Amino acid sequence: MENIKEKTSNNIFQNELSKRGELVKNYLLNHHFRKLFKPKDIFEGVYSYPTSKGKSLRAAILLFSCGATGGQEKKAIPAAAAVEMYHTWTLVHDDIIDNDNLRRGKPTVHRQFLNKALKQGYSLKEAEEYGKNIAILVGDIQHAWSISLFNDLYSKYNFDPALVLKLINELERVVSPLLIEGETLDVQYSKEEIGKVTKEQIIDMSAKKTGELYSSSAKIGAMIGLKNTNEKHPLILAISKFCFNCGVAFQLQDDILGLISKEKRIGKPVGSDIREGKRTTIVWYAYKNASRGQKNKLLKLIGNKKATREEIREAINLLVYLNGIEETKKLALNYIKKAKRFLKAIPESSYKRLLEFWADFMVSREF
Amino acid sequence: MENIKEKTSNNIFQNELSKRGELVKNYLLNHHFRKLFKPKDIFEGVYSYPTSKGKSLRAAILLFSCGATGGQEKKAIPAAAAVEMYHTWTLVHDDIIDNDNLRRGKPTVHRQFLNKALKQGYSLKEAEEYGKNIAILVGDIQHAWSISLFNDLYSKYNFDPALVLKLINELERVVSPLLIEGETLDVQYSKEEIGKVTKEQIIDMSAKKTGELYSSSAKIGAMIGLKNTNEKHPLILAISKFCFNCGVAFQLQDDILGLISKEKRIGKPVGSDIREGKRTTIVWYAYKNASRGQKNKLLKLIGNKKATREEIREAINLLVYLNGIEETKKLALNYIKKAKRFLKAIPESSYKRLLEFWADFMVSREF
Repeated sequence: MENIKEKTSNNIFQNELSKRGELVKNYLLNHHFRKLFKPKDIFEGVYSYPTSKGKSLRAAILLFSCGATGGQEKKAIPAAAAVEMYHTWTLVHDDIIDNDNLRRGKPTVHRQFLNKALKQGYSLKEAEEYGKNIAILVGDIQHAWSISLFNDLYSKYNFDPALVLKLINELERVVSPLLIEGETLDVQYSKEEIGKVTKEQIIDMSAKKTGELYSSSAKIGAMIGLKNTNEKHPLILAISKFCFNCGVAFQLQDDILGLISKEKRIGKPVGSDIREGKRTTIVWYAYKNASRGQKNKLLKLIGNKKATREEIREAINLLVYLNGIEETKKLALNYIKKAKRFLKAIPESSYKRLLEFWADFMVSREF
Repeated sequence: MENIKEKTSNNIFQNELSKRGELVKNYLLNHHFRKLFKPKDIFEGVYSYPTSKGKSLRAAILLFSCGATGGQEKKAIPAAAAVEMYHTWTLVHDDIIDNDNLRRGKPTVHRQFLNKALKQGYSLKEAEEYGKNIAILVGDIQHAWSISLFNDLYSKYNFDPALVLKLINELERVVSPLLIEGETLDVQYSKEEIGKVTKEQIIDMSAKKTGELYSSSAKIGAMIGLKNTNEKHPLILAISKFCFNCGVAFQLQDDILGLISKEKRIGKPVGSDIREGKRTTIVWYAYKNASRGQKNKLLKLIGNKKATREEIREAINLLVYLNGIEETKKLALNYIKKAKRFLKAIPESSYKRLLEFWADFMVSREF
């Protein structure tokens, strides 16, 4: 009986989540900015990820946070679209950096235009360059758009322009430097010896790369909900810490799914993190638990760009065997537990229930 | 006598120009954001161009425009720093796209970190990737910083936050889409057959790539000077059109200097535009004036990435011989003439004289 009830609630949550995703997607698809994306390749590149099946988790938490603090979600939609678009430009540039070819089951932006250029008769080298160049420019205009979207709060819904400025600053002054630092550390750590990067460094990198944008998404939602930009306001503080911890857990779960999910399910190649030599807590725990022979094996396989499918499989099996996944899962669940403690400060409401479900979803999701 | 007077005035102008450059450079170097640029490679990358000898022409015209419309320049410095930083991120990304190795006499950002990675023992391929990755991230954080700098107008000088929002929107909603379009066309045109791209298309591309940011820099200066965001205000309109036309002339002069200046002087390799196959009005005029044999020669040389130094020299000689440079110079001077007509609306002042000198400098500069 309990199980059926839980399932029903979870269905309700999924439904509420999709609704927010649709609202934000539609806002982006019908936005007046769309006529400014030129020429055709830029237009197509800009809408490539927003039209694929993403979960819009950042937009959703922004809207839920707005609701949970007494605001009207409808008026927060431009901000939700802004954080979603902000997240999108970081994905487009990150996919170049990580040499990823697939995202959400479709070619990544740089790959999409590499393919297109090949069809037009470019050499492979020229096509690779063209793909990357378009993807750099697509990310840049998405970045510009994300900032510009905040302006709608002022022009459409008459929010105080000082509040809007504060929200822009929240992304550009708070999130951007940390996110870029996290991305850079991610690149640099993958070149370090495996034993040298500590667990604390890995978690700090994940927090910067992922946790900060989540935290700010919730903060922005609460600031809109409360029409208050005081960061020390207890509700803003609580909801932003809640979401920061959920964001770290999200990244840990992401690392896990990158290894043990099905390619079709996550929409990106399983094991690409291994070829790129990504330092995750999974690798850290496994390496710590490994015998000398197993350590050598891991050193040989992780970061080997030419690893075969079998070698990738072998590496994953070893990471599982050495409890890398299990311990990372535990860590993720601990972050969710820690996150939920901050919810105590939030008044009871149906929105608060959505926040709780959302937190669980961050680590229970399988794609 | 006239000549001496003119020389003195020109010296005064140069001095005024350098002063603005210094003010903006110091603002950027001492800005509180600097502690947020981490890790070390990001910090170094961010300050690479701002610490090299640039002319800060966009920042200067913003400050002059503020003064010419009755504002206090001092209070416009954060905005001048913002457009300078905005311009800088576009350079960093543009240099990746154009495969340029030198800027202002120093390695471009992606090249700087390629060199560094090579010294650390990376393979050439890995080092190339590292250099580009850092440059992508450096441009991204510079973009974020440029937007965040506008906030100082509100927090330091108490400008109306609605005005500040308008200025941010001026860059992100007006300039960014056009600039990205111009950059993309620049990439795409270089792959087209030479005869196919029209003079109008080339000028339109230059206007988008370069003219729009100049136009907005002046507009922002005037909006601050007048504390007025009405784009139809006659002074704002006049100064923005003035600067748009100067910006197009600047790009034409830039194309000329890229061919006939000394490498040491312009700080970048002469003729790289030829190897990259850039479509400029220089190429357009020369091709129009060429005999069939000369046309074939041009087709062979322009866009040939493996062209030798001698072939580059040959191509340049042909472009000069066929009046490509002369006619482009004429075109640039016409744009300056057209620009100056808009100055009639600007009240007389020492600032107006600086605007006139600035306009002449856009095409008389030799670096």
